[in-house]
Amino acid sequence: MANTYRMNALDQALVSTGSRAYAAYGTSSDANVRYLTSFRTSDPVIYLKRLNEEGLIVVPAMEVERAALESPCTVISRADAGFFDILKEEPDPLKATGRMIADLAGGSILVPPEFPFGLAQAISSHQPIQLDLDTLSAMRSQKTLSEIGMMRESQAAAEDALETALALIRRAKPTGELLVTPEGTILTSEDVRYAIHATLLRHGCRGVDTIVASGDETSVVHLRGTGSLAANAPIIIDIFPQNEETGYFADMTRTVVRGEASPEIREMYAVVSDAKTLAFSLLRSGADGSALYRAVVSLFEDAGYGTEPDGFVHSLGHGVGIEVHEAPSLSTRGGPLAAGNVVTIEPGLYYPGIGGVRIEDMALVTDGGYERITRFPEVFCI
Amino acid sequence: MANTYRMNALDQALVSTGSRAYAAYGTSSDANVRYLTSFRTSDPVIYLKRLNEEGLIVVPAMEVERAALESPCTVISRADAGFFDILKEEPDPLKATGRMIADLAGGSILVPPEFPFGLAQAISSHQPIQLDLDTLSAMRSQKTLSEIGMMRESQAAAEDALETALALIRRAKPTGELLVTPEGTILTSEDVRYAIHATLLRHGCRGVDTIVASGDETSVVHLRGTGSLAANAPIIIDIFPQNEETGYFADMTRTVVRGEASPEIREMYAVVSDAKTLAFSLLRSGADGSALYRAVVSLFEDAGYGTEPDGFVHSLGHGVGIEVHEAPSLSTRGGPLAAGNVVTIEPGLYYPGIGGVRIEDMALVTDGGYERITRFPEVFCI
Repeated sequence: MANTYRMNALDQALVSTGSRAYAAYGTSSDANVRYLTSFRTSDPVIYLKRLNEEGLIVVPAMEVERAALESPCTVISRADAGFFDILKEEPDPLKATGRMIADLAGGSILVPPEFPFGLAQAISSHQPIQLDLDTLSAMRSQKTLSEIGMMRESQAAAEDALETALALIRRAKPTGELLVTPEGTILTSEDVRYAIHATLLRHGCRGVDTIVASGDETSVVHLRGTGSLAANAPIIIDIFPQNEETGYFADMTRTVVRGEASPEIREMYAVVSDAKTLAFSLLRSGADGSALYRAVVSLFEDAGYGTEPDGFVHSLGHGVGIEVHEAPSLSTRGGPLAAGNVVTIEPGLYYPGIGGVRIEDMALVTDGGYERITRFPEVFCI
Repeated sequence: MANTYRMNALDQALVSTGSRAYAAYGTSSDANVRYLTSFRTSDPVIYLKRLNEEGLIVVPAMEVERAALESPCTVISRADAGFFDILKEEPDPLKATGRMIADLAGGSILVPPEFPFGLAQAISSHQPIQLDLDTLSAMRSQKTLSEIGMMRESQAAAEDALETALALIRRAKPTGELLVTPEGTILTSEDVRYAIHATLLRHGCRGVDTIVASGDETSVVHLRGTGSLAANAPIIIDIFPQNEETGYFADMTRTVVRGEASPEIREMYAVVSDAKTLAFSLLRSGADGSALYRAVVSLFEDAGYGTEPDGFVHSLGHGVGIEVHEAPSLSTRGGPLAAGNVVTIEPGLYYPGIGGVRIEDMALVTDGGYERITRFPEVFCI
């Protein structure tokens, strides 16, 4: 994913802190590493970018060829980076890796907050190491056209999966408190989650911890849901697929009722939908995430809903990218939104004994406002 | 996953380093955090275990109820842990989190190597922080009966998926250099990988970066494979599913040829199979991982194969658990194996222009030897 803008942002951080090189370390499940290297691996690799140079990655010899195919970085083997020579003097692999990074940097090193403490300590025996708080997080929050394209693909997968889920729910008939399929079986969270994941898989995406919760479960925000789905009660479906190839996520939520919604849920749905409309009306480059959050809190309060202990208990939204939750934050914390951010708007209300409602769309922030990435319309009683 | 043994191991580390509390931090994609908390989350949580006390996790208020359902740890909200009071004096969330952890610990803190550097620095303004190199890694390498059961489940999923893959390959007919299905289409890596992932999904597992590589691709160890599968040439299938619910992996590899194998591949297969047999004959508690590795290298060398630049270019095996690669290591590094370790034995040979062969089984190390967890027989020409 390295491109000119990103190299400049890291270079600027190096210059402003007087550092010689920027380092990251981890497997590709570390979002910074995956972002900087585009390399997929279950074993940790080293990323290092010296001032005004291309980024490089250090991998085991057997991975050099594959890394060169997958990563835009310069690829060198641990052997060529001097690792095995260092090991002769320093047999502890962690300490040897620290010294190798220090040698490669040839000066003080800047690292992101997620950099592992053990390796940082090993490096600091040889070169000064400094914490960089925000550069990578800011870079990652600023999506390129190519990244936006990848996120649209993940979103298309999410919407196809949601369509599959709704079709399953629609063909089941409310029978007492249950949903009964035409085959006479009771429809469960597991059935719907499996159908969602199977659809995501066909799109090259994987769904993890997908929420298909119903009835009382919906009043607990992130409960994934289990067992029979409730009729005439909210069903929250929160889908956040990651594309296996690109690593980019999408994130969307719908709350539906199969049958008749209670008056309380009906009212909550209307207010949550209004809150979403309000938030989108305020969404644009330069707006502050905390201002959007506060506007939604006011709307909820005017309608008689609070933020604690129940009600609107979470943030209004968050950035999405190579992690499902990343910068910026639309919460009390907030901060200015910028063109190129991809964020969710996801107001929700949760009351034990009544249930929960959440609606979540994803959008690209632009100078004048936003481009909605979510195409799926709101659906409620089905 | 916390149990008496594990608490004792952490307590021993605390006592031997004179520390007051053990801390970990991350989302559930951090293996230490998932292992210690059994909590699944896309947002980072704090794990803290004070000397001779149960472990606790600190989560946002909205996650308290779910965390209490999922985790055996004591669950407290950030509010109850004093986070929002601290934020009034220290508005930077990272620094405030560091101070909160320091306050909760009430003394010096021990952390694993993967602990984030940024948070370690924030803690160190308030309490001393020390690196613990091996305790968690050693605890995780020592599987409980319950963990072994979970890994057997993941392995069963892998074997069902492999059976699906082989069925697809068997029904395709070698036609020139390609495999052609009864429907007249060309069988691809993508087809087989999709079938594997769909089967894993039915078992509640997900496959990530599954390898279905053929022909020339197989000489590059971890190339995932793309496009048409080659007839009369090695097809390496490496499946390492993670159970979504439990988090535990399995890991297995088979190399098959649909049609006729070349004499070179035939000979490589025979030697790799012998190497696997030899390694298993040496596998037991007390044996050193590096001794097994060296024995296999000798066998390969006696048969005319080397370790660089081509040949047996990787380690002989590795621990498997809540990460696909974890301690112990069966490589030049090595170290003594212990009863309760679950490891792979995976000799392989790779030659550009000829191809690659790898066979991988997973086994539980016992006092007298091992219990093989992999049930799937070796298969070669099909």
